[in-house]
Amino acid sequence: MKNKKSTEREGNLEGEALSRVLERASVLVTALPYITRYAGKTIVVKYGGNAMLDTSLKAAVTQDIVLLRAVGFRPILVHGGGPEISELMRRVGKQPEFVGGLRVTDRETVELVEMVLVGKVNTSIVSLINQQGGLAVGVSGKDAQLIVAEKREGAAVDLGFVGDVQKINPQLLLSLCDAGYIPVVSSVGAGLDGESYNINADHVAGEIAAAVGATKLIVLTDVAGVFSNPKDSGTLLPEVSVSQAKSLIADGVADRGMIPKLEACIRAVEGGVQRSHIIDGRVPHSVIMEVFTDSGVGTMVLPD
Amino acid sequence: MKNKKSTEREGNLEGEALSRVLERASVLVTALPYITRYAGKTIVVKYGGNAMLDTSLKAAVTQDIVLLRAVGFRPILVHGGGPEISELMRRVGKQPEFVGGLRVTDRETVELVEMVLVGKVNTSIVSLINQQGGLAVGVSGKDAQLIVAEKREGAAVDLGFVGDVQKINPQLLLSLCDAGYIPVVSSVGAGLDGESYNINADHVAGEIAAAVGATKLIVLTDVAGVFSNPKDSGTLLPEVSVSQAKSLIADGVADRGMIPKLEACIRAVEGGVQRSHIIDGRVPHSVIMEVFTDSGVGTMVLPD
Amino acid sequence: MKNKKSTEREGNLEGEALSRVLERASVLVTALPYITRYAGKTIVVKYGGNAMLDTSLKAAVTQDIVLLRAVGFRPILVHGGGPEISELMRRVGKQPEFVGGLRVTDRETVELVEMVLVGKVNTSIVSLINQQGGLAVGVSGKDAQLIVAEKREGAAVDLGFVGDVQKINPQLLLSLCDAGYIPVVSSVGAGLDGESYNINADHVAGEIAAAVGATKLIVLTDVAGVFSNPKDSGTLLPEVSVSQAKSLIADGVADRGMIPKLEACIRAVEGGVQRSHIIDGRVPHSVIMEVFTDSGVGTMVLPD
Amino acid sequence: MKNKKSTEREGNLEGEALSRVLERASVLVTALPYITRYAGKTIVVKYGGNAMLDTSLKAAVTQDIVLLRAVGFRPILVHGGGPEISELMRRVGKQPEFVGGLRVTDRETVELVEMVLVGKVNTSIVSLINQQGGLAVGVSGKDAQLIVAEKREGAAVDLGFVGDVQKINPQLLLSLCDAGYIPVVSSVGAGLDGESYNINADHVAGEIAAAVGATKLIVLTDVAGVFSNPKDSGTLLPEVSVSQAKSLIADGVADRGMIPKLEACIRAVEGGVQRSHIIDGRVPHSVIMEVFTDSGVGTMVLPD
Amino acid sequence: MKNKKSTEREGNLEGEALSRVLERASVLVTALPYITRYAGKTIVVKYGGNAMLDTSLKAAVTQDIVLLRAVGFRPILVHGGGPEISELMRRVGKQPEFVGGLRVTDRETVELVEMVLVGKVNTSIVSLINQQGGLAVGVSGKDAQLIVAEKREGAAVDLGFVGDVQKINPQLLLSLCDAGYIPVVSSVGAGLDGESYNINADHVAGEIAAAVGATKLIVLTDVAGVFSNPKDSGTLLPEVSVSQAKSLIADGVADRGMIPKLEACIRAVEGGVQRSHIIDGRVPHSVIMEVFTDSGVGTMVLPD
Amino acid sequence: MKNKKSTEREGNLEGEALSRVLERASVLVTALPYITRYAGKTIVVKYGGNAMLDTSLKAAVTQDIVLLRAVGFRPILVHGGGPEISELMRRVGKQPEFVGGLRVTDRETVELVEMVLVGKVNTSIVSLINQQGGLAVGVSGKDAQLIVAEKREGAAVDLGFVGDVQKINPQLLLSLCDAGYIPVVSSVGAGLDGESYNINADHVAGEIAAAVGATKLIVLTDVAGVFSNPKDSGTLLPEVSVSQAKSLIADGVADRGMIPKLEACIRAVEGGVQRSHIIDGRVPHSVIMEVFTDSGVGTMVLPD
Repeated sequence: MKNKKSTEREGNLEGEALSRVLERASVLVTALPYITRYAGKTIVVKYGGNAMLDTSLKAAVTQDIVLLRAVGFRPILVHGGGPEISELMRRVGKQPEFVGGLRVTDRETVELVEMVLVGKVNTSIVSLINQQGGLAVGVSGKDAQLIVAEKREGAAVDLGFVGDVQKINPQLLLSLCDAGYIPVVSSVGAGLDGESYNINADHVAGEIAAAVGATKLIVLTDVAGVFSNPKDSGTLLPEVSVSQAKSLIADGVADRGMIPKLEACIRAVEGGVQRSHIIDGRVPHSVIMEVFTDSGVGTMVLPD
Repeated sequence: MKNKKSTEREGNLEGEALSRVLERASVLVTALPYITRYAGKTIVVKYGGNAMLDTSLKAAVTQDIVLLRAVGFRPILVHGGGPEISELMRRVGKQPEFVGGLRVTDRETVELVEMVLVGKVNTSIVSLINQQGGLAVGVSGKDAQLIVAEKREGAAVDLGFVGDVQKINPQLLLSLCDAGYIPVVSSVGAGLDGESYNINADHVAGEIAAAVGATKLIVLTDVAGVFSNPKDSGTLLPEVSVSQAKSLIADGVADRGMIPKLEACIRAVEGGVQRSHIIDGRVPHSVIMEVFTDSGVGTMVLPD
Repeated sequence: MKNKKSTEREGNLEGEALSRVLERASVLVTALPYITRYAGKTIVVKYGGNAMLDTSLKAAVTQDIVLLRAVGFRPILVHGGGPEISELMRRVGKQPEFVGGLRVTDRETVELVEMVLVGKVNTSIVSLINQQGGLAVGVSGKDAQLIVAEKREGAAVDLGFVGDVQKINPQLLLSLCDAGYIPVVSSVGAGLDGESYNINADHVAGEIAAAVGATKLIVLTDVAGVFSNPKDSGTLLPEVSVSQAKSLIADGVADRGMIPKLEACIRAVEGGVQRSHIIDGRVPHSVIMEVFTDSGVGTMVLPD
Repeated sequence: MKNKKSTEREGNLEGEALSRVLERASVLVTALPYITRYAGKTIVVKYGGNAMLDTSLKAAVTQDIVLLRAVGFRPILVHGGGPEISELMRRVGKQPEFVGGLRVTDRETVELVEMVLVGKVNTSIVSLINQQGGLAVGVSGKDAQLIVAEKREGAAVDLGFVGDVQKINPQLLLSLCDAGYIPVVSSVGAGLDGESYNINADHVAGEIAAAVGATKLIVLTDVAGVFSNPKDSGTLLPEVSVSQAKSLIADGVADRGMIPKLEACIRAVEGGVQRSHIIDGRVPHSVIMEVFTDSGVGTMVLPD
Repeated sequence: MKNKKSTEREGNLEGEALSRVLERASVLVTALPYITRYAGKTIVVKYGGNAMLDTSLKAAVTQDIVLLRAVGFRPILVHGGGPEISELMRRVGKQPEFVGGLRVTDRETVELVEMVLVGKVNTSIVSLINQQGGLAVGVSGKDAQLIVAEKREGAAVDLGFVGDVQKINPQLLLSLCDAGYIPVVSSVGAGLDGESYNINADHVAGEIAAAVGATKLIVLTDVAGVFSNPKDSGTLLPEVSVSQAKSLIADGVADRGMIPKLEACIRAVEGGVQRSHIIDGRVPHSVIMEVFTDSGVGTMVLPD
Repeated sequence: MKNKKSTEREGNLEGEALSRVLERASVLVTALPYITRYAGKTIVVKYGGNAMLDTSLKAAVTQDIVLLRAVGFRPILVHGGGPEISELMRRVGKQPEFVGGLRVTDRETVELVEMVLVGKVNTSIVSLINQQGGLAVGVSGKDAQLIVAEKREGAAVDLGFVGDVQKINPQLLLSLCDAGYIPVVSSVGAGLDGESYNINADHVAGEIAAAVGATKLIVLTDVAGVFSNPKDSGTLLPEVSVSQAKSLIADGVADRGMIPKLEACIRAVEGGVQRSHIIDGRVPHSVIMEVFTDSGVGTMVLPD
């Protein structure tokens, strides 16, 4: 009769070890109401910035996503990939060029964009999720015509293959979620003419959240949230209404990086998503903190 | 624009509060591999003893069960109810009588047993689970002929309506689990003649675990587990094989309360359940600790 | 070659025996249009009074219910259990007390009520149905929050835990019917606070009939039906409209026992049930007579 | 308030009328065990002889079939149509010719056979069933290649388009039963060459019973059953085993009309059908009598 | 090693043979947009006239139908059978008689009509389709009460059992299409009284097309289409609107044979069928030509 | 009334135009037996070489694939992309290096390989298929762990991240096919360690064909098929058995490009695929020619 533990079990607990496990059990129990509340609900997470560059943050975000799936939610990840695009461009001898914050994208550039987003950033996220025990499926906007794009109009100069979402065909994402997979979406789409377009990933996330009927959109960023005065860290806004969000853009309060994130949240909320959040991607597990606590970790955008 | 939190949100976090939430998020993440491992699996929990008498332990066990269901497992709760039976008997002027640890059960007594188990203990567990956000359904062994009983033979004296499990018809339990409900089973069954029988709840739990194809059976008790010398608390056995468990009974090591618990585990393991556990119901959240950690909190019974 | 019948067969028929069988076959054929009419339809039967006390009537009612299920209807049985409650109260030394026909129900009493209804009356009906070849499942109002109760207001004195139906969550009943089971419902519910309430079983039957979309509600009683003059047995009303039924109550024509039965029928009809019936439970097989003949065996309540 | 019955109800019952209804209710209850036993089971009925010629017998048989369907069985009707074929042949100036009891069937004759069976006998049975409240669907052996036929070999003279069953493709019948329809099958099939063949309807019934996994085959005939001495009505055999049935054929005891009926029963039983019956189609409702009583109304063929 | 082809393969291609195969492959590719457009759509084809009399045309039409089914459409075939009815009437010594183009149909005649349509024409079409690799199921209007008929009113003389469609119950057809079968419908129906009626097959096709929600109705005829001057073959109308079609009838332009075909198209289009076509059944594969090309092969009837 | 054709229709046909359409209709009909034979069957096509470089061949192959899907088959496309990989390498200043025909693949190279295959070649095939009316979904071997890779062992030098298939998890492909999508698979996989590996696309196609239970594997190449003497175009082998194929490799007859194609076919056939084909991708629509004719267009590999 074995009085010592088997190889698979660490033996019985005593003293401090026991109290740590007890603590842990009670934390799990506190998650219960959140799990019950979101069971079967779809949550779209826009992943970008530092959270996509720092190795341990990457691990934390993908763990969060796998946990959401494991407890019965239906997470969908949307990503962009700015820095890596510029890097490949430089390697092949092209100089990245921006006008008004938007990348000038000739045919050769859009091809490089697609290679980086779909063939590098996306596959590496998929791989990370799979190593955490999830089953991710990479999806480009061309797959099953998920993102029908159209050329962005109205820019001062011709930006080339920079597009906007004309239509989302969400069926593929819904099928993948139904089957238990975690879709990871690259923000590249095709026009009706078959041309590829580079689309802002925040916008894609907002449109997808609306099209799949998500309950929540979470946009990761590299600041603590939205500020009424971006230069004063004491002015973080825990929540803004859609019309306040529009004012922040119109009044020039929101800076260039924050504008598409606010637009994504506005689009989602106007498309029926109950709550959209802009949260700090530099804090590990900030997605789980947002979903599993009543305390805000950023700015929530709500209907008026 | 609101710079203060809304009524629904506690505002953004700072300092110590933030680090507590961070801690909590990382605990949740540690649960991930366990959630993934048991997703869709059935876990039978035999509930009894102090865990069923103490108010805060009752709350903790039912929270544990609701959490198991919420993260995608299929828990089934089986309960007995010794002390409350004797109490009602005394109230109606009958003196409880035991022979060899078994209650002498005449027709009037079995009627009282059924009233207490099905009409009081079961309904109060159902109610507690529902208040925790689960959807429990009370099931007696008569429902859809779940437990076909037969009179226990071989006792020195006629114990009356004390029965054994002759057959389990698990279809009702499977349907309820499929539909997302948490079945709560009273250990009363009917014979083919329609007579009611009082059956040992540990045995019922073991038989049900085998019949529904459970992955795990967890039996709550009022000691820390199985001891090689019950008088020496340093001799707790982290695990025993089925044949060791049989020896513990045959050699008189296991005391009267532990025997049916070991028999339940043996029956379950021989019926295909991978692991059966006898754990300490006096520790709050011990069910979750067993499921969500690699550290044992009692004794595990394994195939030889 | 056997010229005598086998053990399983009674041999071929001749003379009078043959004509009896012929008669029987032709009776079966007369049931055909009724079977066709109600196939797949839900019929709620409120069971109480003598039909629940007399052994042979109990057998007849449960046979009727099993037959309804066997030919393709979906019967749901709802029961109360007044006399047995008072009996247990007296056994534990409590004196039943009534105000305005309603039982004064302190916490101890409601516990006894629940034990009797769920743990004795319900289980014995389940057992009887199962012995007739059906598969019954006992359901208390707490199961899957079937009956959400609220304290009855407006009584002259505080009646304690006497409740009304606040809401019916019929999903569990529908699932059980879909799976071929016969639900047997006890008229006990829980409030949002988790407290148990004793609810009038006629009212429960009426509310359930409306919530499950029943085609028919049949309320068994101990008189022949509703009379325009309860003292004159020649004044039986074969049918009344909902507004006539309301007048019978308002005008004091209906006696105290009949009022909740009429209220149940009114509630059901107003909730969309096509026809509700108050029939004589003292006549054996009166349920089948109501369903399988064009002749009334009591009073039918119809929409205006 | 109406004290007289409405147009839809016959009013309340008294005296003799009441006792007739009571009697009727109790007959229905006696059917319960048979309904339970055969629920969801398939019963193939071979319809022919007087039962197909006499108007009131036709009504009784089709009522029986509709009742079987209504209470949850899956009846399939197979029919032939000898006399009507000869009648049409004579009308178009062809003289029916038989060799060894089999119709000599040239191409013109098989066309007439098909017209009569599929276009007259079948459609009139379908129509009768529909008028009784069932939903019948006429099926020829060509539909979905239900009956693949082959030319009957071994006859002394060339019988032309007289065929045997080479294969049954039962899928269409199963789908129709699943959808609640009553299939009515004509005993005409097509060979692999597309030629039509006239096939003995008893044989078709036996083959179909085996192919659909029927629980029971009932063959209607114009005598009381199988006799050990067909000339002595006192020698009716309540049951025979398959090998006894084969001897009855081999020994020349069975007459020419009975031989294919015995062969059908043998085929069915050897193909897994539990019980096959040859019963008296001249007795009204003999199908129901066979299914709903323990008393035989003919001869049952059983496995050895 | 075999350098010559196996028995199953014709060997590799060279020269002219290769170019023929290349040509064939490219033809298949041209069918692609049509296949995609009609996938899963229901197409009702009214089959009659020469296409039903000429052996090679019969083969071509049934091939077309099988091809439609094979590439994923849901074809339903409706047929009449005038000439064959008259032939059988003459064989049994009855003289066909017509008033205003309609057959005078006494009870004996309607019986002959039914035998010919259901028992001869229908079964022979079913057989042909099955030989082409399809799975056809013959359906008369009586099956599952597909066609509820009523006596045609308003004729100058009593035409007897000549009927009109009172109601279509399309469920059987939908089930058969769902299961992959090709329904072949005879234009015979039963009245509520159970009487058989002979109904114009064009009308039946139009009603069925509307009732099953068909995308297209194709009516085969023995001329090239509808002419604005039937005597001038240069006046073929490629398309007409519903109101033009009505004028063609009202103004006496359409001849007696064309009137019911136009009425069928009008009924279908008014019942929601997008396009109805009257095409030349004398051209082999005209059904496929209509479905798989943009070029018309007759007259299309469109909504106004 | 319009005597001229509408904008949507090209008008009626005459003379030569009519005979062309007739010809076309009859070609479609000849496809019928092939459509029937392969309905619902899975066909894996390995796409590479000239067929992937030449614009009009690309259009032809993708049309073929869309046609296969449209008529009810389940095509899966697998692709590699050698030339485009080398091109990107040169653009970023890396010199492609090969040992024994295999690319030396350091970590930087495998990243470029993945970008080209997943982010360029795959997305452009997906886009082409979508423009032809199909719904393609790009799949990398990492998605849902489709291709579990392991480092290729046994090479003379360390080839770096060159891998072999260790396991295929086909569930994602099956789900996509079930939902009507056309999966397009890149031959990149991840090891259990999360590292990316470049895998020979022929091998991937063979493994996938076996894992999904394909009926047919078609490998496109740039020669007419397999030759017994590659230098003599008259020695094309219409078919070889698996053991002959193994000999061709062992005996040095097959050249370096043909070896993995033969290996893929051998793997597929040994894994249960009935027939594998190596065909000439330079001939337009060669996939359709292979599927829709009995004439070979290359070499078929068969079981021994």
